[in-house]
Amino acid sequence: MNKPVKPEDTGAILKVVGTRPIRPDGVEKVTGRAAYGADLHLPGMLIGKIKRSPHAHARIISIDTRKALALPGVKAVMTSADMPDLAAEHYEAGESASNLRDLSANVMARGKVLYHGHAIAAVAATSNAIADQALDLIEIVYETLPHVIDVEEAMAPGAPILHDQMFTAGLGETPTKASNIATKHRLDRGDLAAGFGAADIIVETRYSSAAVHQGYIEPHACVASYAADGQTQVWSSSQGHFVIRGLCAKLLKMRFSDVRVIPAEIGGGFGGKTTVYLEPLALVLSQKSGHPVKMVMTREEVFRATGPTSASVVTVKMGAKLDGTITAAQVDLKFQAGAFAGSPVGAAVMTSLACYDVANFEVTGWDVVTNSPKVAAYRAPGAPNAALGVECAVDELAEKLGIDPMTMREKNAVRNGVRAPYGPVYKNIGYVETLEAIKSHPHMSIPLGPNQGRGIAAGFWFNIGGESTVNVSINEDGTAIVSTGSPDIGGSRASMAMMAAEVLGIGVEQVRPIVADTASIGFSTVTGGSRTTFATGMAVVQAAEKLVADMKRRAAETWGVEIDQVVWQDGAAHCLQAGKAPKGALTLAALAGSAGKTGGPIATVVALNAQGAGPGFGVHVCDVEVDPETGHVTVLRYTAAQDVGKAIHPAYVEGQIQGGVAQGIGWALNEEYVFSTGGIMENAGFLDYRVPVASDLPMIDAVMVEVPNPAHPYGAKGVGEVPIVPPLAALAIAVRHATGVRMHDLPLSPSKIRAAIDAKAG
Amino acid sequence: MNKPVKPEDTGAILKVVGTRPIRPDGVEKVTGRAAYGADLHLPGMLIGKIKRSPHAHARIISIDTRKALALPGVKAVMTSADMPDLAAEHYEAGESASNLRDLSANVMARGKVLYHGHAIAAVAATSNAIADQALDLIEIVYETLPHVIDVEEAMAPGAPILHDQMFTAGLGETPTKASNIATKHRLDRGDLAAGFGAADIIVETRYSSAAVHQGYIEPHACVASYAADGQTQVWSSSQGHFVIRGLCAKLLKMRFSDVRVIPAEIGGGFGGKTTVYLEPLALVLSQKSGHPVKMVMTREEVFRATGPTSASVVTVKMGAKLDGTITAAQVDLKFQAGAFAGSPVGAAVMTSLACYDVANFEVTGWDVVTNSPKVAAYRAPGAPNAALGVECAVDELAEKLGIDPMTMREKNAVRNGVRAPYGPVYKNIGYVETLEAIKSHPHMSIPLGPNQGRGIAAGFWFNIGGESTVNVSINEDGTAIVSTGSPDIGGSRASMAMMAAEVLGIGVEQVRPIVADTASIGFSTVTGGSRTTFATGMAVVQAAEKLVADMKRRAAETWGVEIDQVVWQDGAAHCLQAGKAPKGALTLAALAGSAGKTGGPIATVVALNAQGAGPGFGVHVCDVEVDPETGHVTVLRYTAAQDVGKAIHPAYVEGQIQGGVAQGIGWALNEEYVFSTGGIMENAGFLDYRVPVASDLPMIDAVMVEVPNPAHPYGAKGVGEVPIVPPLAALAIAVRHATGVRMHDLPLSPSKIRAAIDAKAG
Repeated sequence: MNKPVKPEDTGAILKVVGTRPIRPDGVEKVTGRAAYGADLHLPGMLIGKIKRSPHAHARIISIDTRKALALPGVKAVMTSADMPDLAAEHYEAGESASNLRDLSANVMARGKVLYHGHAIAAVAATSNAIADQALDLIEIVYETLPHVIDVEEAMAPGAPILHDQMFTAGLGETPTKASNIATKHRLDRGDLAAGFGAADIIVETRYSSAAVHQGYIEPHACVASYAADGQTQVWSSSQGHFVIRGLCAKLLKMRFSDVRVIPAEIGGGFGGKTTVYLEPLALVLSQKSGHPVKMVMTREEVFRATGPTSASVVTVKMGAKLDGTITAAQVDLKFQAGAFAGSPVGAAVMTSLACYDVANFEVTGWDVVTNSPKVAAYRAPGAPNAALGVECAVDELAEKLGIDPMTMREKNAVRNGVRAPYGPVYKNIGYVETLEAIKSHPHMSIPLGPNQGRGIAAGFWFNIGGESTVNVSINEDGTAIVSTGSPDIGGSRASMAMMAAEVLGIGVEQVRPIVADTASIGFSTVTGGSRTTFATGMAVVQAAEKLVADMKRRAAETWGVEIDQVVWQDGAAHCLQAGKAPKGALTLAALAGSAGKTGGPIATVVALNAQGAGPGFGVHVCDVEVDPETGHVTVLRYTAAQDVGKAIHPAYVEGQIQGGVAQGIGWALNEEYVFSTGGIMENAGFLDYRVPVASDLPMIDAVMVEVPNPAHPYGAKGVGEVPIVPPLAALAIAVRHATGVRMHDLPLSPSKIRAAIDAKAG
Repeated sequence: MNKPVKPEDTGAILKVVGTRPIRPDGVEKVTGRAAYGADLHLPGMLIGKIKRSPHAHARIISIDTRKALALPGVKAVMTSADMPDLAAEHYEAGESASNLRDLSANVMARGKVLYHGHAIAAVAATSNAIADQALDLIEIVYETLPHVIDVEEAMAPGAPILHDQMFTAGLGETPTKASNIATKHRLDRGDLAAGFGAADIIVETRYSSAAVHQGYIEPHACVASYAADGQTQVWSSSQGHFVIRGLCAKLLKMRFSDVRVIPAEIGGGFGGKTTVYLEPLALVLSQKSGHPVKMVMTREEVFRATGPTSASVVTVKMGAKLDGTITAAQVDLKFQAGAFAGSPVGAAVMTSLACYDVANFEVTGWDVVTNSPKVAAYRAPGAPNAALGVECAVDELAEKLGIDPMTMREKNAVRNGVRAPYGPVYKNIGYVETLEAIKSHPHMSIPLGPNQGRGIAAGFWFNIGGESTVNVSINEDGTAIVSTGSPDIGGSRASMAMMAAEVLGIGVEQVRPIVADTASIGFSTVTGGSRTTFATGMAVVQAAEKLVADMKRRAAETWGVEIDQVVWQDGAAHCLQAGKAPKGALTLAALAGSAGKTGGPIATVVALNAQGAGPGFGVHVCDVEVDPETGHVTVLRYTAAQDVGKAIHPAYVEGQIQGGVAQGIGWALNEEYVFSTGGIMENAGFLDYRVPVASDLPMIDAVMVEVPNPAHPYGAKGVGEVPIVPPLAALAIAVRHATGVRMHDLPLSPSKIRAAIDAKAG
């Protein structure tokens, strides 16, 4: 499908965009040379470690660090007393931190510990062993408090209260006393009662999902080096080094210009590396000790103290006519935020009905604090939880109506011109095309055997644009450098190089893409929200176009002709005016080699706030077989179709889709935070917290549907989030059809399924 | 003298330019955190070492590396056979390499070794000790050849010939056989015979100087890491990482985009770090071994195998009328190039008479290869050697005429409007102001005692502009980053930050200057030639001005007014239209904080090839006392006046002047390459090669004369080269006046002076 989206005027066929070149970061990664967060070693570097709360909820009576500090080899000990007290600061909306006061108290407890594993002190020492010993020497007196982790229990009257100053906001109610409900969200349209009145059939149902972790392979890691004059360098693995810089500077009240954050290679983030945990602590320890400080989390720490996504309870009431037309929907979403406000329930509210053209609806979301780690973004945050409830409800409705689930979705599908439940009118969306791709896919005709079932579910994500800065320069030999401020978490170096090569008219191997540090390029926000190929890519294309214009000017000057007598093609300037270009075309290499004579080095910058990211839709179909003896679910086959706009590097797009599905399958079948009655996570390791491994999964067939996004030069839409949205529901529905039982609570563990089968059998 | 050069339109007083803020690199350096070339450590890194020639001149019969390679711990061995053979390549003018074929053969001998210490093989091993052992196991069979080191001997008939294919070029002669004369240079004007005919007095004199080393504190050091797909990183201490990239890429036939050079902090260069020695070898060793390879020279290697500057012989014939008017000058300059062509004799020819308005002259220069290390640039390359001869000749003439040496110089001084001996007509030069500054300086009235003498000498350097790229961006809190591709060898980070702060209207502490790597910024040529404050500074000012314009646009948009209703002052936009700016001025911080709403991140780039660097002149006066018993020279006092255009950071300018003088004093009094009869340098260490230490020097009074350069936004001229030009002559003249003997051969060592005094005494 390499039809040109641009440039329309020439009708040229795309030569690079849409191909599958070898990734520029591939060799580095497979040969072990890529430097991740933990790979940096500096002379005199110390090891920083964190003392963590043994209680799920407790008041801190006292912290005595003297013995730890006296231990030979210990160079610094810190607590929240060493950080600015931001309690009095106004609320500030950050990239991903709900507010700075909470973020500060999350990275280092102040007054209370709010979850088991909450950081309460940190040490820097000359070795791992000494640091561990020092942690044991820190004496803390706690007053333990009752705790609450379950989201519905936390909302109930009489629940232990995490934040005395937190009152329920929103909905115009007068707050009377502290609660664990941070925020209520509401979205509605039409006349709900009339809608249900018009329905022939109504389902009311409830689905819950457990907290699951992003499960990135690379634990959080950083090195911070603080100089006596305040100049600071931080090496850190993150989805956005500018955001790391901003949060560190704000938490520690430093100048942004004094904090230089250098991006390490990143081993997965999935939304979970858009905020800080270690960096501010390493900075304080470096400042106090006068040494560089490295901090690397163990996997256990990653589980206990970094963001999983929310456990949630979704109740759906949905009505439809006999022909399948959905007349009304009422959705209630309760999201566990963890210790501080800020679950993704707002996005869950907005996405919950985004695939459905429903006239009457009301969606309510509850952001609820609990004595568990503060949640962090995880691929399409909130959307999978919401889709679990809504897609299963649609399946229930279809089942009751006796309508094919695909037909049911086609009947109610949003189309161009329909106003999205969350506000804007859809344009250039590819949802029906995606439904059609699944409907006509060979997968749908494969017959199912005994104990086998098929589940279909749809999913939606907004995708975003936002701020990106890009530098493109041409080297003296005509090769190019594309430098961005966007960490490459899913292949953006490849796609940036490809888009630049396409515009410049050279081979992609002539273009070196790099991720520059915060001092070497202008601001760029996180790689997340599915924005980079769209927004940073747009900046790359604009920058390359500026360079082509500059090159045409240089060629025109060289030839002594007007610039409109010069065309750029295949990486060279060609002269339309006869006799003026005796040596023929001026290649990029020729122009670059003589750049000094035509104005100096060839370099440009584009900084933009990209608008017009096209929303993404996916439709998945999944076949499972359930072992009736054990309740074990085998995923037989899985097909995921998605509107990707235009696939810049199709192999990466397929990889994104396959990866999202794999994570969704884990979320549906195996993954969950298991807490003891004392509020301690009992499975904080990959042996007990089971993510899917290769042998758990079929080959996932990724079907790219290309409905171009006209706001992007080549039509790209974000692709990274949508694929995790449908799997939770698709699996639950497939299990229903394999077993005859509706499973309402994720994960769909063998024991639960076996129990449900037994219960049904009576 | 902080009168504004710009902006003339507002008449504003400069607030930052001309002040002396604390240097941004200061704390890092004094606390030992600054990372120099040898400070990087990578996992799996090997140590690379070089096998060097024990002969001054020999044919390489065979190299057997098998035993070395078999040694456990040795991971790679290389010779020139592992590098592309560039013998057939066309001559290419490089930044500092005379041509690539020669550069290749200098970094690794091919066919012949041409000097003692010439690299002939290299090893990479897991430790220093193993690498050393491996070097001993490399078996080389040589056929030794007669060698020649003295420049006049090398020019003589029958001298051993270094390059069989080298024929004397220039002057229209027909080459008949190979010679050691690489090039002849000629510059003339007027009628020499008539000029001498008009003279009342003629002196004919001869001065020689020895080869001296730049003596930077940091030996050459680099780490190279070559990946299997060709992507390469080089960390290197140099005066120009783009030039290091270019030379490596060309020597090894790699894509420029595949070589990323990351600048380390640099511990001195003075011209000597504008080319490559280790980097290509480390790259080849890294490629062969699959490991990163670090190479660090010993001080001995620095002396034996990196560029000193030329030993030279300068003969001057100069005639003058009785009133002191110089009527004719004939200068002959013979420069030792070392093993390959490319001494700075060309610059010596051009600068030799640059302070004198002489109607009739002829200057000839000879670039002569010798069996000694290939020379490299050293501060104002060639000019000190030439000035030694010319300034001493002027002093001889003044003495014979009985004219005060200052009057002699004033009488013949070049002024604005005079055509420089090397071509262009002088504009905005400050030579006579500089003469006046010394003439009126208190130094000149200090009486001299017995055995004391005073020497006056002038000096000239072109200064250059050239290609620079600068990125300036504004952080979200309104602080700024100034990123350049110019390594900071003399305070450029400070001056760049100051110029940006001046334009932006903020404090210099709000601006963080950094040196970005070759992938993070566009091309910038070496920091050298005295170009960075001028050329890169011009780009910084232009970039900051672009940002001010951008900020005014954003403010105008915010207020809904025309852009001409917005003025920028003191780091904020102010609205001229009443009632439109209810909240008052929009500060940089306010505009930066809401940049997303006004177009995205605030960042810009300026890439230029700066023209109009103003030439620099200096006049020095030096008082010495000579111990008649030992011949030891004590420098009693030293005053150096120089036209610096406008001093951006006066303390750095003074430092440049003082540093240049200190090096010039070392060159004059102590430093020299001493070779054995076998052609081996006998003093390859700082114990035997004596650079001046603090106790050898008086406090050097640097007098800044500010005659602004209108081509630079703040009037800056280059300042780093001029101060090394006059000292050689100033010292020789001062010794003359202290002792009554003319010393014609540098260094002015005690034994030579004592011998001359004895000879005079008869």
